[in-house]
Amino acid sequence: MIVEEKILELERRIKQLEATKKKDQLSMVVFSGELDKLLAAMIIATGATAMDMEVKLFFTFWAISALRDKEKRAEKKELTSKMFGAMLPKGTSDVKLSKMNMAGAGLSMLKSLMKKKNVASLEDLLQTAGELGVEINICEMSMNLMGFSKDEMIDYPKLDYCGVGTYLSDAEESAIQLFI
Amino acid sequence: MIVEEKILELERRIKQLEATKKKDQLSMVVFSGELDKLLAAMIIATGATAMDMEVKLFFTFWAISALRDKEKRAEKKELTSKMFGAMLPKGTSDVKLSKMNMAGAGLSMLKSLMKKKNVASLEDLLQTAGELGVEINICEMSMNLMGFSKDEMIDYPKLDYCGVGTYLSDAEESAIQLFI
Amino acid sequence: MIVEEKILELERRIKQLEATKKKDQLSMVVFSGELDKLLAAMIIATGATAMDMEVKLFFTFWAISALRDKEKRAEKKELTSKMFGAMLPKGTSDVKLSKMNMAGAGLSMLKSLMKKKNVASLEDLLQTAGELGVEINICEMSMNLMGFSKDEMIDYPKLDYCGVGTYLSDAEESAIQLFI
Repeated sequence: MIVEEKILELERRIKQLEATKKKDQLSMVVFSGELDKLLAAMIIATGATAMDMEVKLFFTFWAISALRDKEKRAEKKELTSKMFGAMLPKGTSDVKLSKMNMAGAGLSMLKSLMKKKNVASLEDLLQTAGELGVEINICEMSMNLMGFSKDEMIDYPKLDYCGVGTYLSDAEESAIQLFI
Repeated sequence: MIVEEKILELERRIKQLEATKKKDQLSMVVFSGELDKLLAAMIIATGATAMDMEVKLFFTFWAISALRDKEKRAEKKELTSKMFGAMLPKGTSDVKLSKMNMAGAGLSMLKSLMKKKNVASLEDLLQTAGELGVEINICEMSMNLMGFSKDEMIDYPKLDYCGVGTYLSDAEESAIQLFI
Repeated sequence: MIVEEKILELERRIKQLEATKKKDQLSMVVFSGELDKLLAAMIIATGATAMDMEVKLFFTFWAISALRDKEKRAEKKELTSKMFGAMLPKGTSDVKLSKMNMAGAGLSMLKSLMKKKNVASLEDLLQTAGELGVEINICEMSMNLMGFSKDEMIDYPKLDYCGVGTYLSDAEESAIQLFI
């Protein structure tokens, strides 16, 4: 019967649409290691959880520096990795501004303004993100490249290591995608 | 009857799909305060209106500098805010390149090339954007943090102030989303 | 008959949804001309082809430098264009890091680490991208602005020149969109 055939055709088309349906999810590549960009990333991330979105952050390159634990020490690195790693910031308290560093004057001015205006610090934002269930995936390839190892990363509730394929799968089904 | 039940089921699935349908809308976080990135942002924004898209720009951090009016003066700021604000560019004519500044040589060379090649200046692009109905939302939190106030911002047709929640709602229903 | 009317209404709604359906496609504005960002862009691009996505890169501003062929020479440029072009990197082997350049020490350290850890170089990634069918579109307006011409660009399988309109059309139907 024609009506039933038509219904089957419509259902087939609906299935195709459902296959590309976006999740209520935010996917973000966090690439930059500067305080200002990391703040923007974490403010967007925690803001999205407040709207009940799933949030998946993919930390890569310079941004991974901010996830290093100041107290932890990595073992058995080769020389170039050791040197490269030593030149990079260690943890959130160590990251700089992308401009106006002026030997640290711009940075400390901004930090003092953040306190005065009650803007959450990067440390606080990371902790809140963890509590709110924000997932952090570290790009394993660039972590190795930067000379970092898993044993020097911070303790974070949902921390994992992955490759670009995992990022792309997550991004493809996310309603919001950003590269910071 | 089975046909009617099936139709109800399909309608329910269509409704779910409609709930995540993207608008013909472009949402952009404009974070960077450099001339080259601001040019890219405004060229994409005005280009999108030419294709009948709605355009919503969310100016935050350094980019807000470009929206300061050279002539307007903010009142009653505290000292750190005053100092921080004084170090930041005031308006489109004051922003720099992200590289090749070379004491302004690269910047003036680029500006002279833009004139020769008939590329619209940042001032012109902002004015065109205003005429074409591009919405500009300024992130209120970072405006306060930078030590800026509403009374020193340019006159622009669709200028408003908001938080990260407004940005996320807009971004989620936008067909194109970027962070510049 | 009510059932047939209902089916027509559902079909109309399905058609509207199909009109905004995203393709299994990644669209990326490659704006930055630094080695680290170009690496990230090309790793994401080649990774996406491995997942059977179509990939369309839109090279603009500083990123175009990386597509200049070291051996090719552009003819008949005016003076300012010649000077501006001469100050910009020529090809993948000439691009710098966005930070830690330290007179080239950071750059050569990273390059040596990339070899040790078997991370593909930018040259290799570009060649792989070409073989995998990644499309590269160069923004014609910014190419002219930078003082580059078509005859100095690399040989690449799917290289074309376009404007912001083409980029926006591609981006709008892409499941993943990024600005790097």
